[in-house]
Amino acid sequence: MKRTLFLLFCGLISLMASAQEAASPNGNVRLKFYLDGTRPAYELAYKGREVIKPSRLGLELARDKHASKGLEETDLMDGFGIVDYKTSTFDETWKPVWGETATIRNHYNELAVTLKQQSTGRNIIVRFRVYDDGMGFRYEFPQQDNLNYFIIKEERSEFAMNGDHTAWWLPGDYDTQEQETQQSRLSEIRGRFDKAVNWGNSSVAIFSPTGVQTSLQMKSDDGLYINIHEAACADYATMHLELVDAHTKQLTTELKGNSNVYTPAPQPSAYPLPAPMTFVSHLTPDATGLKGCMQTPCSTPWRTVMVSDDARDMLSSNLILNLNEPCAIDDTSWIHPTKYCGVWWEMIVGKSSWNYTDDFPSVQLDKTDYTKTKRNGRHAANTEKVKQYIDFAAANGLDQVLVEGWNIGWEDWVNMWKRDVFDFVTPYPDFDIKALNDYAHSKGVRLMMHHETSSSTQNYEHHLTEAYKLMNRYGYDAVKTGYVGDIIPRGDHHYSQSMNNHYLHVLKEAAKHRIMVNAHEATRPTGLCRTYPNLVGNESARGTEYEAFGGSRPDHTCILPFTRLQGGPMDYTPGILETQLKNWSDNPNIVHTTLVGQLALYVTMYSPLQMAADLPENYAKYMDAFQFIRDVACDWDDSRYLEAEPADYITVARKAKGTDNWFIGGKCDENGHKSNIRLDFLDEGRKYECTIYADAKDAHYEHNPKAYVITKKTVKKGDVLKLTEAPGGGFAISLFAK
Amino acid sequence: MKRTLFLLFCGLISLMASAQEAASPNGNVRLKFYLDGTRPAYELAYKGREVIKPSRLGLELARDKHASKGLEETDLMDGFGIVDYKTSTFDETWKPVWGETATIRNHYNELAVTLKQQSTGRNIIVRFRVYDDGMGFRYEFPQQDNLNYFIIKEERSEFAMNGDHTAWWLPGDYDTQEQETQQSRLSEIRGRFDKAVNWGNSSVAIFSPTGVQTSLQMKSDDGLYINIHEAACADYATMHLELVDAHTKQLTTELKGNSNVYTPAPQPSAYPLPAPMTFVSHLTPDATGLKGCMQTPCSTPWRTVMVSDDARDMLSSNLILNLNEPCAIDDTSWIHPTKYCGVWWEMIVGKSSWNYTDDFPSVQLDKTDYTKTKRNGRHAANTEKVKQYIDFAAANGLDQVLVEGWNIGWEDWVNMWKRDVFDFVTPYPDFDIKALNDYAHSKGVRLMMHHETSSSTQNYEHHLTEAYKLMNRYGYDAVKTGYVGDIIPRGDHHYSQSMNNHYLHVLKEAAKHRIMVNAHEATRPTGLCRTYPNLVGNESARGTEYEAFGGSRPDHTCILPFTRLQGGPMDYTPGILETQLKNWSDNPNIVHTTLVGQLALYVTMYSPLQMAADLPENYAKYMDAFQFIRDVACDWDDSRYLEAEPADYITVARKAKGTDNWFIGGKCDENGHKSNIRLDFLDEGRKYECTIYADAKDAHYEHNPKAYVITKKTVKKGDVLKLTEAPGGGFAISLFAK
Repeated sequence: MKRTLFLLFCGLISLMASAQEAASPNGNVRLKFYLDGTRPAYELAYKGREVIKPSRLGLELARDKHASKGLEETDLMDGFGIVDYKTSTFDETWKPVWGETATIRNHYNELAVTLKQQSTGRNIIVRFRVYDDGMGFRYEFPQQDNLNYFIIKEERSEFAMNGDHTAWWLPGDYDTQEQETQQSRLSEIRGRFDKAVNWGNSSVAIFSPTGVQTSLQMKSDDGLYINIHEAACADYATMHLELVDAHTKQLTTELKGNSNVYTPAPQPSAYPLPAPMTFVSHLTPDATGLKGCMQTPCSTPWRTVMVSDDARDMLSSNLILNLNEPCAIDDTSWIHPTKYCGVWWEMIVGKSSWNYTDDFPSVQLDKTDYTKTKRNGRHAANTEKVKQYIDFAAANGLDQVLVEGWNIGWEDWVNMWKRDVFDFVTPYPDFDIKALNDYAHSKGVRLMMHHETSSSTQNYEHHLTEAYKLMNRYGYDAVKTGYVGDIIPRGDHHYSQSMNNHYLHVLKEAAKHRIMVNAHEATRPTGLCRTYPNLVGNESARGTEYEAFGGSRPDHTCILPFTRLQGGPMDYTPGILETQLKNWSDNPNIVHTTLVGQLALYVTMYSPLQMAADLPENYAKYMDAFQFIRDVACDWDDSRYLEAEPADYITVARKAKGTDNWFIGGKCDENGHKSNIRLDFLDEGRKYECTIYADAKDAHYEHNPKAYVITKKTVKKGDVLKLTEAPGGGFAISLFAK
Repeated sequence: MKRTLFLLFCGLISLMASAQEAASPNGNVRLKFYLDGTRPAYELAYKGREVIKPSRLGLELARDKHASKGLEETDLMDGFGIVDYKTSTFDETWKPVWGETATIRNHYNELAVTLKQQSTGRNIIVRFRVYDDGMGFRYEFPQQDNLNYFIIKEERSEFAMNGDHTAWWLPGDYDTQEQETQQSRLSEIRGRFDKAVNWGNSSVAIFSPTGVQTSLQMKSDDGLYINIHEAACADYATMHLELVDAHTKQLTTELKGNSNVYTPAPQPSAYPLPAPMTFVSHLTPDATGLKGCMQTPCSTPWRTVMVSDDARDMLSSNLILNLNEPCAIDDTSWIHPTKYCGVWWEMIVGKSSWNYTDDFPSVQLDKTDYTKTKRNGRHAANTEKVKQYIDFAAANGLDQVLVEGWNIGWEDWVNMWKRDVFDFVTPYPDFDIKALNDYAHSKGVRLMMHHETSSSTQNYEHHLTEAYKLMNRYGYDAVKTGYVGDIIPRGDHHYSQSMNNHYLHVLKEAAKHRIMVNAHEATRPTGLCRTYPNLVGNESARGTEYEAFGGSRPDHTCILPFTRLQGGPMDYTPGILETQLKNWSDNPNIVHTTLVGQLALYVTMYSPLQMAADLPENYAKYMDAFQFIRDVACDWDDSRYLEAEPADYITVARKAKGTDNWFIGGKCDENGHKSNIRLDFLDEGRKYECTIYADAKDAHYEHNPKAYVITKKTVKKGDVLKLTEAPGGGFAISLFAK
């Protein structure tokens, strides 16, 4: 024993003097770890160019009576020496249950540094994995006498930028990520922050005028694309980033929200400010203002930095999936890609209602008698209408029909601090759940369940088992969940550790019942869909619904794949072919794309779950264009990003799973775009029937959105397609192998 | 419509000018309601003597974005006019599922006053029920356009005392009521407060140096007994009382606790302070500091004032049960009184352990492998030992055997902010759940389940259904639940609205599985056992376990029936015949009663659930005295309180359910007591075999606790028994009809 200690001590001396380095397999990405005094620090470079300048790592802990064995909760910020480091290489190819490609290669070099805090004797490990397109690191806390349980006051991981990059950012918020993305220099964030907040959202809780969300996409003046996010966030609070800029006096001192739930003001840090243009991690608090309850052995999620000089690498990267654990579900045979339509858009637009009646000032589930009231005439989830949607789905090869508003409780469902909002099992009197499921199944279609929780998680957890049993009984195998409004229990936030645990609890319970989950307003994804592939979709961003609430900028869908989609697929609900809502409703808004732009989204916005979100009667007007939605796949053997620039354009070709057919999508911003697509990826010597859905020459998302041209021809490998995308437009191409 | 309004207006004018009165059926209790300016107010008198001086009523509301239809949340404190009042009489006799008497008469006169707040148009009702032994009032909030949802900032119900009474009080605390009761003048509360706090408890959250808990028993200098408590507290926070004394500058400004969970400091009230010697209601907050989320139609719990010039009336009163709703469980055939022993006291005393091993620094349920570790040799809940307890129960007519520490997770079970502490279904390797239940059933005994939640309510709710299914599978029909430690979700408190909802949720789920519940460390009872009679017991006070932690004063059990037991039975776990713990363990403490005093508790501390808490080997030393525990009933057709004085003595005779046998118990404080018991209540002309368990002449709870004399004789109606109770002693008598 004595000898080991002596060796450790010798090692310590020598290790403290030198930095440890790790390079990616191809050498392009280089990571350096060292101690800055006694604080852990790192730097990152790409092809010899600085990506992350010297940045420190550490966590501040809360002082709590429940500290390990009576020890004070000393911060894990400084006082460290290096006691050990290990390097290793990993190279494995795995098959996702669904995805953009049939296989994914996970190839990295690893550096694991064991640090000892001399004053407390505590050990922690900082583990880096360096990929050709970036790196991830996490803190690991081995089980040890002096560190059994602890509470995180704040994680202080720094990401020091080497310039005033252009960033595509959302205001950091504990409850929503449905804002419009801002594009600005880092130094401009503070000045634009207030206007960037979506004050109209049902929950807003911002914490700093330079707080931003991840995934944060940036571009340096010298053309490096840099993306900061996280991977495998489980049993931990979601991370935000707070930018230290020229005006920052201390971290995390401000907090505003339109929720007047009391949120304790975050405490200033006792540690010195990093240099300006440094991002510092900021976790989502619980109701008491603290950030995480930890039990060793445990680790933080991976903090990820993706980097390339080619924007397309940002989109094709699998770094975040690779940093997640392998699939934890043994039998995944019941998990399948799904194309669906649903009783939804007509409520979003305001023509129909989720609620059954307008007669009740409020509802108490155990007392309100719906059979004694009258229908409001606008309740969409009724047997007759749902049958029409089932017929439409069956006629057009759609797998499922989502029905929102089928269950009692919608009369006063949100933001009343009402716990028992829904029971998730009782249909409205005009929704015949048995007959409709039977009817759907007779036509080869399934209904998709809807569980809006209105963020009353206690209530949802009470009813979860019975609700899933009901789904099993009637043959539902997918549920869209919703978390609109402030969280109950009061004081908690959508992105806290406990809420992240809730979402995971739901996912695991659903898996027991062989149910796929598509969670809306839940936490932003961090690749957990690798481990739990029944998480087939998330919203967690500004979806198509906002087009009915006032609109999203045309470049919105040219940003999302760089940001929100890094962590997992989004149920964006595209396919609004009648982009002028006034043509069939009282809603004056327009969708900010051309009709063809809507088709393109099925390819550019990767998801195994794709909705045809418009109404059957609107599709009836454009059946030739709708053919693309009928044809397009939503699971893929291969994907090739052909062109990409954040907020400008994205062009991608994908090979449909288990076939030789390809689909190509191009989407652009308000400036239009010209694409030359060389069909290099097609099979040699094979012919393809090619259908091109293109914007007409005079198409424009505002003035002339529904002008399109459909062209058919036969193509082969090497052919070039020249396409012009209208402002706010795009194109969609199907290539069927002959 | 116009005519109605006109009439209402005329009524308003005349009603505002006059007070409304209501008297109890026998006229002894008189209630007056009136407006003090525009604030609701009341007074209470007993036999012409002032009990509650002019006291105001009202609620302060929180301003919340989710206010009803955008209206500001105007306080419901003032600006009221009287628009209507109704008086009525009620007289009904009902049968409790279990209780102190076979039937209970519910006889009261009611005054219901409808108040309108002129500025908001809101109506509320204040309903008074006046009984011969006190009164209850509550606020009712009818459903109305202007009051659909609201959040309570604080309830401001006043109870103005007419003198500096003697009070038996506990420091007001959001998390514990396990303190020793203080006896002092009201004016002395502030000076004694700090010492009264049980700082060693696992959760402490006090809010004011004059905050006290209910039920609060008082005695006036002119001999009136006054008790303030509440009834039917459901979907509402538990009420405390804050005394305005000569030093009070504003209400509820202080908050201290040994929990460093952040609790927002309560806000001062904007309304003028009432006069000194006035109690003001103070509700338990949620994690955000607010007190209740309400949806109309709804009402507060009943606020109760019991009063009499005879202390025995405090004990025989059914006012709190009567103010609760009738039984909500249709089939109650599975609910039964229970006498039990258990694997418990040896852990409390410190001789055995709940945990199986000492080898794990911490446990993760899904990872820790107990089969790969070694037993610590002190784990009591093992198959062999439990069999001995089963044999003991079977041999002595005990119905059940509680086993604590049977399930995995006890190695690090409390106050680590660990959510997933127990799964409630996995036994330790040395506890053969199937064999033990089979063995017990073969001997006519059942095991009693134990679910310590360590206050991780989220975890318990996740496992509830499976845990109850396991109980059903093995034949358990009763569960002792526990809520030791700080509440998870963090920031919440044991007595908040959401926790009260949790306890009720557990009770209802248990009822679905035909399971009786005995909840420890849960909220203080308010008579809900009438509505949910599967709530057969609660702890919610300082139980016998504290005798092993340092002791409770000898007068403790002469106070509890006046205070804690008002709301429902307590699982006090009496029957520690070996009162000197050092005789069989390393614990140096003594039980602060004589051996006979322990026997008396089975009669004086009414409960349908009674434990014989000592070890079988200790009972073996005193089998003649143990005979009383074997004989005594725990359900009754009649109860007669013969003598009572708070903190001094209690003597009660009870007739065993469905028999002609009586049991009498007398318990006294450290001063001893002499009783002359006239057997008036026996049947005329019948003879009874009487066994008297009395303290020996030289018995004393400290010096000579186990000196007792057992006398047998035949008695008849009208005979007088003269008994001397030793200091800290008592007596127990069985009377079997011949």
